[in-house]
Amino acid sequence: MKNTPKNTPPTVAELADFLGCPYMGNGDTVIYGISGLENAKKGDLVFLTKLKQQHFLEKTKASAVIIPTGLDYNDLPSIKSKNPHLSFVQALDFFFKAYRPEPGIHPQALVAPSAKLGKDVSIGAFSIIGDNTKIGDNTVIFPLVSIYPGAKVGRQCLIHSHTSLRENIRIGSHVIIHNGCVIGADGFGFLQGKDKSHIKIPQTGTVIIEDNVEIGANTTIDRAALGKTVIRKGTKIDNLVQVAHNVEIGKNSILVAQAGIAGSSRTGKNVIMSGQVGISDHVNIGDNVIIAAKSGVTKDIPENSMVAGIPHLDIMEWRKAWSSIPKLYELIKEVRRLKEKVAELEKKS
Amino acid sequence: MKNTPKNTPPTVAELADFLGCPYMGNGDTVIYGISGLENAKKGDLVFLTKLKQQHFLEKTKASAVIIPTGLDYNDLPSIKSKNPHLSFVQALDFFFKAYRPEPGIHPQALVAPSAKLGKDVSIGAFSIIGDNTKIGDNTVIFPLVSIYPGAKVGRQCLIHSHTSLRENIRIGSHVIIHNGCVIGADGFGFLQGKDKSHIKIPQTGTVIIEDNVEIGANTTIDRAALGKTVIRKGTKIDNLVQVAHNVEIGKNSILVAQAGIAGSSRTGKNVIMSGQVGISDHVNIGDNVIIAAKSGVTKDIPENSMVAGIPHLDIMEWRKAWSSIPKLYELIKEVRRLKEKVAELEKKS
Amino acid sequence: MKNTPKNTPPTVAELADFLGCPYMGNGDTVIYGISGLENAKKGDLVFLTKLKQQHFLEKTKASAVIIPTGLDYNDLPSIKSKNPHLSFVQALDFFFKAYRPEPGIHPQALVAPSAKLGKDVSIGAFSIIGDNTKIGDNTVIFPLVSIYPGAKVGRQCLIHSHTSLRENIRIGSHVIIHNGCVIGADGFGFLQGKDKSHIKIPQTGTVIIEDNVEIGANTTIDRAALGKTVIRKGTKIDNLVQVAHNVEIGKNSILVAQAGIAGSSRTGKNVIMSGQVGISDHVNIGDNVIIAAKSGVTKDIPENSMVAGIPHLDIMEWRKAWSSIPKLYELIKEVRRLKEKVAELEKKS
Repeated sequence: MKNTPKNTPPTVAELADFLGCPYMGNGDTVIYGISGLENAKKGDLVFLTKLKQQHFLEKTKASAVIIPTGLDYNDLPSIKSKNPHLSFVQALDFFFKAYRPEPGIHPQALVAPSAKLGKDVSIGAFSIIGDNTKIGDNTVIFPLVSIYPGAKVGRQCLIHSHTSLRENIRIGSHVIIHNGCVIGADGFGFLQGKDKSHIKIPQTGTVIIEDNVEIGANTTIDRAALGKTVIRKGTKIDNLVQVAHNVEIGKNSILVAQAGIAGSSRTGKNVIMSGQVGISDHVNIGDNVIIAAKSGVTKDIPENSMVAGIPHLDIMEWRKAWSSIPKLYELIKEVRRLKEKVAELEKKS
Repeated sequence: MKNTPKNTPPTVAELADFLGCPYMGNGDTVIYGISGLENAKKGDLVFLTKLKQQHFLEKTKASAVIIPTGLDYNDLPSIKSKNPHLSFVQALDFFFKAYRPEPGIHPQALVAPSAKLGKDVSIGAFSIIGDNTKIGDNTVIFPLVSIYPGAKVGRQCLIHSHTSLRENIRIGSHVIIHNGCVIGADGFGFLQGKDKSHIKIPQTGTVIIEDNVEIGANTTIDRAALGKTVIRKGTKIDNLVQVAHNVEIGKNSILVAQAGIAGSSRTGKNVIMSGQVGISDHVNIGDNVIIAAKSGVTKDIPENSMVAGIPHLDIMEWRKAWSSIPKLYELIKEVRRLKEKVAELEKKS
Repeated sequence: MKNTPKNTPPTVAELADFLGCPYMGNGDTVIYGISGLENAKKGDLVFLTKLKQQHFLEKTKASAVIIPTGLDYNDLPSIKSKNPHLSFVQALDFFFKAYRPEPGIHPQALVAPSAKLGKDVSIGAFSIIGDNTKIGDNTVIFPLVSIYPGAKVGRQCLIHSHTSLRENIRIGSHVIIHNGCVIGADGFGFLQGKDKSHIKIPQTGTVIIEDNVEIGANTTIDRAALGKTVIRKGTKIDNLVQVAHNVEIGKNSILVAQAGIAGSSRTGKNVIMSGQVGISDHVNIGDNVIIAAKSGVTKDIPENSMVAGIPHLDIMEWRKAWSSIPKLYELIKEVRRLKEKVAELEKKS
């Protein structure tokens, strides 16, 4: 993939060149936009990942298509790719420019004199950059963001409106934080007093978000009691996720919406926590583990496994159990009948 | 129901006239407030929906009551209604005026010159109305709201503090959005690279919220990858709900708190998703479906059905299964005993 | 425990005096910080709660340790405490000072002339203090907070950025509200019209948060339809929790992250709702009840019980059932075999 898309609508040949892929058919066909297979209109580029989707092409109004290498297809101009989905995503750079405020500090932003701002930083109106903070080059702080004293944000980050970065937390580079996130609020730690009241345990630690992490809207990541809560490089977190104090999430993991992970639990790399999963405190989860949606994880999980259920079972065991549950009602009746028959047989014998 | 309640405390006769209902007893009784049956004090109007609640009236301190048509009751002045709960809700207009800021643009709001504001709009302090936005007549933008460029909001809406309306999304008319909502953050879409890192799929689509929708506090509705995420007319969404990219929610549906629906799923009209329900991606749910609290929906659901469980079952099947589970422990013992007896019988025969 | 820690690093003898505990070994040892047993470095104070952790002390780099009264240990200087964890938390006051803005009203805060502010209040930039509000002595309103008209906040509170306190709600004293909370948005109440549209029931009530409550980030607590939603004294609520209208949570309770409780339900005192628990509407939960993570509570729970499951069962019954489910698959096969054998026996007899 090359680096600089033009500003005029590209031809199929130009797109193919940009993507580093061969093309078939009329390379001069101009492409005006991009869309899904079913909603395409004239001028659109679409893509096909699976051969069995090929029948969609018969009816499409699209003007060109990215197809898998090896597919025999000649109707529309086509770009052949080993990974059509990836090529399609790369082609989006020609047509879509995400909204991004210009560099500069808005006159109605409040930046503490002791804050250190990098080159070409953008700070939006009504945002507050506290004492002794640091914002790296090319980072965008959208309007209405609250950055507490001592927090540090790396280069090339996007921090969206209504997000709170609490005191002394650290954000790496190329991090995207969507709206309304709270990074570094106090962890939930109390001791019970004699009268059953709860005594607050000061949450003296911090949060470290490493490079290339993306965090969805209204997600909360608590600061550690002692030490740090860590999100490792390349991990992607969806909306409304809860990460408790002292948790460590391994690199390149996926946390789907509304998942929650309790205090001091650790996950390996490449872990997938599906939607609404819950993980108990002090649990260790190995590399490459996949946790099915809504599971409740109560114990350690060895690497390379897949689990489901509340409390979780290995996926094979879970499937057996869950395919059996709808049969249970009849099973109880069956056992009752057997019991009667056996009693009858015993009487006879 | 007539249109203009007076500003002085109404009499029973005036309330009855306003509600379009007949009354019994002393119509000159003045009503000062409204309350539930159990907490009523002198001067209050209460209401009764079910005949079996009638015994509450013996002890009430209320001064008047809305009762179902056909109930034989003479003790207090009463208003007879075919739908007492609805009449009660309508009567609230006499006594309760929800807080609503005055029209006008606060001097400390930031409105882009290219923004188009309708008549009698209210824009609160420290709110930001971005470039090329549009706000319809009589809409209230509370303080501390962030409206990104290109977003459009219809007439008669209420957008509460700390809400983010992201770039280019569209909100219809008569829409209420409570505090802290995020409408149009990026959907959660990534491709996996060779090194197990995740490549962001640009989220180029938008969100459409149709007329008469209400959205609870801290709810998140993501923009589509391509195309649009849609909430149809009249749908009501509670707090902390997650709606992923490319979802379409049918009209007049109910999404209770902490429910979540994954990418590209579609629901029909009049669907009820109870609290903490989760719906997988690419699922189709028919009209009038009811999903019990905490269910996990993994497959399509035909119209007019009710489901429960994780993964979901039809409600009748679920009830059988779930009434059976507490019997399972004894069942296992029973089967063990039967096995022994059968072995015994086999030996004998 | 005494009241005024010094500003220079304390000695073991000074710490022991502050904590009201005896010490053993060199009381002149200076302590520079505090940490967990495993990560301690020279100069740190650590603590030991359980005798079986004693082996950690063999390898620790810490300079002193708080140990349980009665433990026979002489290697490092030690402070003997009846409750080492509590003493440790108290000792944190020497080393950790949570960030707290100075008293004073920021020139870019907007305080209504009718607002009544107590002594030494701190109001941050871009915060809005509405008409007829009241803020008690020594309370900190962080920047970017929205306080709607008529809301009242007591003494010594911390209200963090991006929190909304809606009209007329009441917050007691010594309350901490973390970022992004919404207290007093409309409850989720609708009547169904004839055309299946939903008619909004005005939410005319309020929210009362009593003294010493702490509320985690992005939590939502809705105002009552009529009357009030109440959080009683000393209750601690984690992040992303949903409390619906007219709920009453008893004192000294714990609501863990992502729990949700539906309308008009009531809980006793000292109740623990674990993570992602859901409670149906109009349910009564007794004192001292413990609800396991992810449970779905659909019926009243008597005091002093522990429950788990969806729908919930008493914990003993739940354990029996859940230990049995993985055996169900084999049980079905076993019953099939038994059925065949019994049929065989019947034929013979």
